[in-house]
Amino acid sequence: MSPKYVYFFGNGVADGKADMKHLLGGKGANLAEMTNLGIPVPPGFTITTEVCDAYYKNNKQYPDGLTEEIEQNLSRLENLMGAKLGDAENPLLVSVRSGAAASMPGMMDSVLNLGLNPDAIEGLIKKTGNERFAWDAYRRFITMFGDVVMDVERHYFEEILDKHKKKVRAKSDTDLNAEHLKSIVEDFKVIYKKKTSEDFPNDPKIQLQKAINAVFASWNNQRALKYRQLYEIKGLLGTAVNVQSMVFGNMGNHSATGVCFTRNPSTGENKFYGEFLINAQGEDVVAGIRTPEPIEDLEKEMPEVYNQLVKYKNTLENHFKDVQDIEFTIQENRLFMLQTRNGKRTARAAIKFAVDMTKEGLIDKKTAISRIDPNQLDQLLHPTFDPKAKREVIAVGLPASPGAATGKVVFSAEDAEKLSEKREKVILVRKETSPEDIGGMHVSQGILTTRGGMTSHAAVVARGMGKCCVAGCGSVIVDYKSQTFKVDSKVVTRGDYISIDGSTGEVMLGQVSTVQPSLSGDFATLMEWADEIRILKVRTNADTPEDAKRARELGAEGIGLCRTEHMFFGENRIDSVRQMILSAPDVKNLKARIAILEKDLAKSANNKTNTIKKELMQAKRELKEPLNLYKSALNNLLPMQRKDFEQIFESMDGLPVTIRLLDPPLHEFLPQEDYNQKEMAKKMKIGLQEVQEKVSAMHELNPMLGHRGCRLGVTFPEIYDMQVQAIIEAACNMKKKGVTVYPEIMLPIISIEQEFVILKDDVHRIAKEIMQKKGMQIDYMVGTMIELPRAALIADKIAKHAEFFSFGTNDLTQMTFGFSRDDVGSFVPDYIEKNILEKDPFQVLDQEGVGQLVDIGIKRGRSTRPNLKVGICGEHGGNPQTIHFCNKVGMDYVSCSPFRIPIARLAAAQASLQQPILQTTV
Amino acid sequence: MSPKYVYFFGNGVADGKADMKHLLGGKGANLAEMTNLGIPVPPGFTITTEVCDAYYKNNKQYPDGLTEEIEQNLSRLENLMGAKLGDAENPLLVSVRSGAAASMPGMMDSVLNLGLNPDAIEGLIKKTGNERFAWDAYRRFITMFGDVVMDVERHYFEEILDKHKKKVRAKSDTDLNAEHLKSIVEDFKVIYKKKTSEDFPNDPKIQLQKAINAVFASWNNQRALKYRQLYEIKGLLGTAVNVQSMVFGNMGNHSATGVCFTRNPSTGENKFYGEFLINAQGEDVVAGIRTPEPIEDLEKEMPEVYNQLVKYKNTLENHFKDVQDIEFTIQENRLFMLQTRNGKRTARAAIKFAVDMTKEGLIDKKTAISRIDPNQLDQLLHPTFDPKAKREVIAVGLPASPGAATGKVVFSAEDAEKLSEKREKVILVRKETSPEDIGGMHVSQGILTTRGGMTSHAAVVARGMGKCCVAGCGSVIVDYKSQTFKVDSKVVTRGDYISIDGSTGEVMLGQVSTVQPSLSGDFATLMEWADEIRILKVRTNADTPEDAKRARELGAEGIGLCRTEHMFFGENRIDSVRQMILSAPDVKNLKARIAILEKDLAKSANNKTNTIKKELMQAKRELKEPLNLYKSALNNLLPMQRKDFEQIFESMDGLPVTIRLLDPPLHEFLPQEDYNQKEMAKKMKIGLQEVQEKVSAMHELNPMLGHRGCRLGVTFPEIYDMQVQAIIEAACNMKKKGVTVYPEIMLPIISIEQEFVILKDDVHRIAKEIMQKKGMQIDYMVGTMIELPRAALIADKIAKHAEFFSFGTNDLTQMTFGFSRDDVGSFVPDYIEKNILEKDPFQVLDQEGVGQLVDIGIKRGRSTRPNLKVGICGEHGGNPQTIHFCNKVGMDYVSCSPFRIPIARLAAAQASLQQPILQTTV
Repeated sequence: MSPKYVYFFGNGVADGKADMKHLLGGKGANLAEMTNLGIPVPPGFTITTEVCDAYYKNNKQYPDGLTEEIEQNLSRLENLMGAKLGDAENPLLVSVRSGAAASMPGMMDSVLNLGLNPDAIEGLIKKTGNERFAWDAYRRFITMFGDVVMDVERHYFEEILDKHKKKVRAKSDTDLNAEHLKSIVEDFKVIYKKKTSEDFPNDPKIQLQKAINAVFASWNNQRALKYRQLYEIKGLLGTAVNVQSMVFGNMGNHSATGVCFTRNPSTGENKFYGEFLINAQGEDVVAGIRTPEPIEDLEKEMPEVYNQLVKYKNTLENHFKDVQDIEFTIQENRLFMLQTRNGKRTARAAIKFAVDMTKEGLIDKKTAISRIDPNQLDQLLHPTFDPKAKREVIAVGLPASPGAATGKVVFSAEDAEKLSEKREKVILVRKETSPEDIGGMHVSQGILTTRGGMTSHAAVVARGMGKCCVAGCGSVIVDYKSQTFKVDSKVVTRGDYISIDGSTGEVMLGQVSTVQPSLSGDFATLMEWADEIRILKVRTNADTPEDAKRARELGAEGIGLCRTEHMFFGENRIDSVRQMILSAPDVKNLKARIAILEKDLAKSANNKTNTIKKELMQAKRELKEPLNLYKSALNNLLPMQRKDFEQIFESMDGLPVTIRLLDPPLHEFLPQEDYNQKEMAKKMKIGLQEVQEKVSAMHELNPMLGHRGCRLGVTFPEIYDMQVQAIIEAACNMKKKGVTVYPEIMLPIISIEQEFVILKDDVHRIAKEIMQKKGMQIDYMVGTMIELPRAALIADKIAKHAEFFSFGTNDLTQMTFGFSRDDVGSFVPDYIEKNILEKDPFQVLDQEGVGQLVDIGIKRGRSTRPNLKVGICGEHGGNPQTIHFCNKVGMDYVSCSPFRIPIARLAAAQASLQQPILQTTV
Repeated sequence: MSPKYVYFFGNGVADGKADMKHLLGGKGANLAEMTNLGIPVPPGFTITTEVCDAYYKNNKQYPDGLTEEIEQNLSRLENLMGAKLGDAENPLLVSVRSGAAASMPGMMDSVLNLGLNPDAIEGLIKKTGNERFAWDAYRRFITMFGDVVMDVERHYFEEILDKHKKKVRAKSDTDLNAEHLKSIVEDFKVIYKKKTSEDFPNDPKIQLQKAINAVFASWNNQRALKYRQLYEIKGLLGTAVNVQSMVFGNMGNHSATGVCFTRNPSTGENKFYGEFLINAQGEDVVAGIRTPEPIEDLEKEMPEVYNQLVKYKNTLENHFKDVQDIEFTIQENRLFMLQTRNGKRTARAAIKFAVDMTKEGLIDKKTAISRIDPNQLDQLLHPTFDPKAKREVIAVGLPASPGAATGKVVFSAEDAEKLSEKREKVILVRKETSPEDIGGMHVSQGILTTRGGMTSHAAVVARGMGKCCVAGCGSVIVDYKSQTFKVDSKVVTRGDYISIDGSTGEVMLGQVSTVQPSLSGDFATLMEWADEIRILKVRTNADTPEDAKRARELGAEGIGLCRTEHMFFGENRIDSVRQMILSAPDVKNLKARIAILEKDLAKSANNKTNTIKKELMQAKRELKEPLNLYKSALNNLLPMQRKDFEQIFESMDGLPVTIRLLDPPLHEFLPQEDYNQKEMAKKMKIGLQEVQEKVSAMHELNPMLGHRGCRLGVTFPEIYDMQVQAIIEAACNMKKKGVTVYPEIMLPIISIEQEFVILKDDVHRIAKEIMQKKGMQIDYMVGTMIELPRAALIADKIAKHAEFFSFGTNDLTQMTFGFSRDDVGSFVPDYIEKNILEKDPFQVLDQEGVGQLVDIGIKRGRSTRPNLKVGICGEHGGNPQTIHFCNKVGMDYVSCSPFRIPIARLAAAQASLQQPILQTTV
C-alpha cells in the first residue's frame, strides 16, 4: 500500500493535526488542527512534504497514486462546497500555497483564485453578482500564475496595467471598472502567450497541476535556499502544498481581511493586537497601498464577527499555549481563519509572554525558559537607535559589538582621549586597533575599523567593554595623513559626526538619536528561574573594577578572566612598562653572561684568569644601568597593579577572581608609529634611533605564535614575580578589610609540563614570602589556560600540577585551524558562502575539531586530578550553542563579556534542560 | 650481606669484565677485561658506580663496609706489588681516576702519584736511584691533589713554579734539578696551607680517602653536568673510582708513554696509528710541550716492546671487534696497558671501519649499519674549510645549514644576482630572508642572517638547497642604507670578503680555503647495505630539476615535496605573478557582485529592474580590465610551470613526484621595500600609491595563519586550475616521450573536509578535460598535507577523499606548540637551557605532543582508507630520531633535503633493525 499523500480538512473534521508539521508543513498542520477545534476554516487538502521529497528524488515525477488521491480529495472538496472547479454556474476557486515545517515567510510561492477560466468567470459573476470583483480576481490570477508558474516576469503584467490606467486616467487600481479589467485580462493573455509560447490554460485541472509543480519548484529557488542557509533550517523533506477553497475579503463592505496577534508582539502586553482592511484581499494588506485599521475598530464595524474572532483567538492561544499570529478573512459577514502560527516577537515581548503565561498557569517555568532565544536578549542589553530616526547609511561593515553610538570622528586613540577630556563624544575610526589604542577605545562611544573580522582586536575588546563596534568595513578608506575617510566620493573629516550601529554594521552620516535599554522586572524574574535550573556557573571576563561591578549586577558569579595587560596601558603606566621592556633583555643577557663568566673563572687556568676577571668586572658594570631601570620600572608598576587587584577583589567580594598573568608579546606595548616613537624617545631620554632599533629587534613575523604569555614568564621572571606579588599583597590587604578573596592565578599559553612547573613554583615561592611577611593565609589557586593543542594533548601531565583549567578557545581555534582571527576576513566569508564552513569558528565553537581537543583536555586533565575545576574564557563562552557544548563536556563554568552574562545564564539553563547531566565535580 | 663495592684486577685475573661498564665504568670494566685477556695492566681495584650513587643519596657518606673493602683490596694490591703505601723502602704509588659508563673525556678529575710523603720520597729515591724524578713526582702530586681535592686553584702552584724557573733562569721544567724541585715542593706546601688552612696530608690513607671523595664530587661539577646535558647522557649511577698502581713513563730513556689507535681514526685506513714520548708522563703528551713521535718510530727505538704492543692491539681489536683507542706506558722497557676503549672517529673513518671489518668477517652488515651515527654523515656531504687554514672568527651564529662558503658580502638578493652574473662569489647578508630572496639565495655561496632560528626561512631554504647558512647571528648589526655590517667595532662593507661555516656558525673575515667532499666507494657500499635492511622509503624535497637530479644520485626514491612557489620567483615570472595577484581580488569581487545582481534581476520588481540592469552593465564593464590582466598573467605562467614539471618528471622517470600547489600567502610575492615597489609600479604601469595600497591591503598580522595554501585555492580557483593544468599537460607530454610519470598532487593546509572535497573535484575536472583532449591516461593521485591539528583530528573524514597524506611537521609543530619558527629564537634557547625543552622541536619531532597528532592522523586516516599512503615532508624527515618515530608509526616514506638522503637511508635502516615492524600497507 502506498503511503497517504493527501490530508483533507473541512467541516469540523481533518485527517491531520498540529503535531504533524513535519509531514503537512506548519500551515497545513495548523489548518487541520483549527478544523478539528471547530474553528471555521475554508475546507481544502494538504499534499504532504513526502511528496515534495519523492518528486525531487524521482526526477520531478509524481509518485504513483498521487494523481488519483488528488482527484479524490478534489471531488470531496467540490462535494463539500457544492461547487466545481471551472463550473459556469457555481465555480470553485482555490488557493494553492506552499507551507514547510519551518516558517520561511515569503520565500516560496502561492497561487490564488485558481480555477478561473471563461466559463468560471460567468459562474463567479452569477454567484457574486459582482462583475468587477470577478474580473479583478481573474487578472490577479493570471498575473500570479504567469509569474509563479510560468516565470513570466511580473513587470510585464504591471506595465500593461499601468498603460490601461493611464489611458483611462485611473489613479489607483480601484478606479478601474469591470470593462477595463476585462480588456486588461485580454492583454494579459496576449503577453502570456508571447512569453510562454502557449495559450493561458483554461482547464482548471491543468492549472492545478502546474500550480502544484510550481510550489514544489519554489522549495529550491534561490531565495528559499539562501533563507534556509541563513537560518540554518535543515533536515526538512520539502514543502507541503495546501489546496484550499478561496474565501474573499474583497466582496464588498461586509468583507474584510486581517492579521492579528493574541498579544502585543512588540511590547508583550496581554492585549489583542492586529489590523484589518475592509473589502480587500490579503495581498492588499501586504502591498501597503491602503492603511489598515487597528483590530479594535472591527468591534464597531462588525461586532458579532469581532466577538467570534476574540473567542477563536482565545481558543487558539489556550490550545497552543503560545501567542498566535493569525490570518483571517471575512467574506460577507462570515469569519474564516486562514492560518495560525506561533507569533514572532521582540526580545522584550518574548520575556513578558513567558513570564506572564507562567504566572497565568498556562506554561511552567521550564517551558518559559526554553521559549526564549538567548541571542535575542542582546537587543535588551545595549542602547539602540530610535527606530523612528532617519538614517543616512553610507557603508555597512561587520556587526562586531552590538549597540548604537554617535560621535565626532577621530583617527587616533590620543585624539580620542584629548577630545573626550573636553566632554566631546567621539567615534574612533582606525584601519585596525592594537592594544595601545585601548585607552582611546575606552573613552570613545564606538569604534569603526576598516579591517579585521568579528574577532579582531577591535571587536573582541569592544565586546569586552560592552562598547559598540563596526569592524572590517572595507568600503571606508581611511587616510590618516589628511585625517579623513572616504566612502565612494563622500569624504568625512575629523570632527564630523557619524553614527554606527553595532547590531547591523551600518555606518551613518550625522547624529542619529538613540534609545536606552531598560531591564524590566520580568527580565529579572526569568533570570532567577534560569538560575534555578542551570548547572554551569557563569563568570565574566572583566579587566576593570567598573566592568566587574557591572558584570556582578548582571549576575556574574566571579571573574573567569581578568587580563592584566590592559592595565598596563594606563596614562601613568605605559612609560614604566616601556622602561621595563627596554631594559629587560639587557638585564637578562648580562646576567646570563655573568653566570657563565663566574663559572669559567672558577675553573680557569692561570693564563686565563685575569682576562675573565676583567670581563666579569666589565659585565657587572654594564649590568648596573639596565638593572636599575628595570627594577625601578617594576617598582613603579607594583603599587598600581596592587591597587587594580584590590579594587577588583573588593567588587567581587566572596567570589573567585581568575587573574591571567601578562600575555601579549612585549612589543605590543611599544609605539609603532613614528610620532609616538619620537615622543617615547623624548620621555625616556634616549635617541629615536635607539627606540627604533629596539622596536625593530622585537618585531615578530607571527606575534600570535611568538614570545608571549608564559614564555615571558620564563625569560623575564621578574615581571610575573611582580604581578604575583601585587595579587597576593592585594588579597592580604583586602582580607584585612573583611573582604573575602579567592584569587586564581592563571598562566597563559602553557604548552609544556615543565613550563608550568617552573612558573607555578615561582608563584608559590613569592606567595609564601608575602603571606609570611603579612602573617596571613590566602586561599589561592594556580592554574592554566588550555589554549594550545599541545596543552590539551598533555592535559593529564599538566593537571598533575595545575589546580584549574580555563579553555582559551580563541587561541585554541586559531591553532587548531591555523587561522589568525585578525586575518581570516579575506577567506572565511567565502568559506561560509561555499558551505565549507557552516559558521565562523571564532563565533561558534567548532565542535568537530576544536571541540575534540576541549573534550580530550577535560578528560585527560580529570584523569590525574578528578576535582579539576574547568571553565572556558574564550569569546565562545557567551555563545549559546557553545554553552550547550560546555555543559555537555562537563565544564564547571563559562566566562563571557559582562553584557552577555544574562544570555549565558539563560543558555546554561536551556542546556541543563536538554542535557540534565550529573556533574562529577563541584 | 652488603653488595660487592670493590673489584680487584691484577696478575692475569680480575673480578670484573667488559660487560660490567654500568657498574665499573668504561675504564674499570676494560682494565678488568684486559687483565683477564692476559695483557699486562698495572694492578689495582675499582670502586663501583653504585658507591657513587649511594654516596650522593646518603649525604656524601660511604656505605657501610666500604672502608673495610677498600682496606682489604689495598692490602691485596700491596702484597701483589711487594710495596706499601708511604713506605720508606719500597713505597707503592697509585693513581685515582674517575670513569663512568659513558665516556666524558676530561670532564672529571684524577689524582696521580698518590702515596708520596717525606718517607715515601726517600723510598722512591732509593728504589729508582733518581732523585729528580722523585721530587718531580712529588710536586706534580701536590699540584693535582691541591687542585682536584682541595680546590686550591692551579694557578697558585704555577706562579710558584714560574718564580723558581725565573730565579734559576730555567727555560722549561726539565731545566729544573732535584734541588730546585725540592724547594718548589716546600713552597707548594706553604701555599697549600695558606689556601686550605691545613697542612698537606702526609698519611697516604687520608690522601686516598680524600682523593676518592674528590672523584665522586667531580661527577657533579659544572663541566660534567653540562657535558652530560649536551651529549644527552642519562640513566647513569655515577662514576666509578679506579685506584691503580702507578707506572712511570718518565723514568729515563727506556721509559715512554703513548696513545694509539688500532686503525687510523681520521682516514679509516687499516694501519696502526698513534704517537709516543720517550721519558714522559701522560700529562706531558696532553700539555703539548714536546712533540710526540709517530708510533712507527717505536719499532726502531724499542723493537721488542713495539712487537708486544702490536700483538696486544691486535688482540684487543679482535676481542672488542671495533677499533680501539689505547693508552700505554713503558716503564724501563716494560710495557703496561693503561686503558682501552672504542676509538672516536671521523665519519669517513667510521664508514671505512664498518665496511672493512664486515669484509674481514669481523662483524656482520647489521652491526656495520648500527655502528654509524647518521648525523655524522653530514660531514661528508658538504664542502668544509681546510682545517689547516687560518680563521679570523668575528662572530658566531647558529649553524643553520652545513657547509663552508667564502664570498663578497652583498645585502640584497638583487645585488647577489647582479654580482653573480659577473661570476663573483657572494655571501648574502640579511636581517632575515623572505621568499622574494630565493633567487638571490640560489646564486649565493652562503647566507648569513642576523635573526631567526634553525628553522627560519633562511635556514630551511638553505638546507633545501644544500647551501651553507649561518642564521640568527645577533652580534652582526646590518645597516642596509650604508651597505655595511658591524660586529663590535669591526665594519664590513659590501664587496668585502667573508667566510662562513654552516657547521659551526662561525663568521670569519677574508677568504678561507675549502676542501671538497668526495663520497668513497665504502660509502656507497654502506648505503647499499642500509637499503637492504630498511622498510621506510626515502624521498626528497626538491623544487628544481637540478635538486631532483642530485637527490636521485644520493638515492632518493621519488619527490616527497615539490614546492611550486619557488618557481614563481624566477626572473620572467615574478612580474606575471604580481599581475595575477593585483588583479585576482578585483576579479573575484566583481564576479561575486555580478552573480548577486543577476539573481536580483531575475526576481526584481518593475521599479527596480532598470537600476539593477545598469549596475550589472557597469560591473561587467569594470570586470573587463582586471579579468584580462588576470587571464593573461595566468596564461603567461602556464607554459613556464609546465616546463618546470616536464623537467622534474623527466629527472624522476619511473618515480613518484608529489607536487604541492601554491602555499604561501600572495603578499609574499609583492615587494616590501620602497625601491622594489617603485620598480614594480614602473613595470606594471601603475602608480606607486596603488602598489602601496595593494600591499597594505594584503598585509596580514600573522601570515602563518593567514590567507594561504588551499585557502587561496578556494578563493582564487583559477590559480590552482592553472597549476593542475600545467602538471597534467607536463605529465602527458613526458609520457609521450616515454617517461614514466606518477604525479601526486598535494593540497596544502587543509583543515576542513569540505575544503578538500571542493578542491579535489576541481583537480579531477581539469585533469579529465586535459586527458580527454590529449587522448591519454595519467596515473595521478590527489592527497593532502596534514599540517594543522584539525586535519589530524578529522583525518578519518579527509582520508575518505584523499589518496595520500604527507605530514607537514614544520607547520604542525608551529600550531601544536603555538610557536612561530621564525620567532622562537627569543625564548627556545632559554627553554633548552632551563630544561623545559630537551630539544628544539623544529629539529627533532616532539613525540610527546606533535607525535600524538601524527599517530592519531595515521590511525584515523587508515581507518577509512586502509591503503592510505603516508609520508612526512617537514624538515624533521631528515632527522634520525624522527625517522625512528616515522618507522614506528608505520609511515611509508620520509622526505628530506637532497643532502640528507644518505642520512635518512641509514637512519631508516637502523630504525628497521630496532623495530622490525610489519608494514600493513605498501
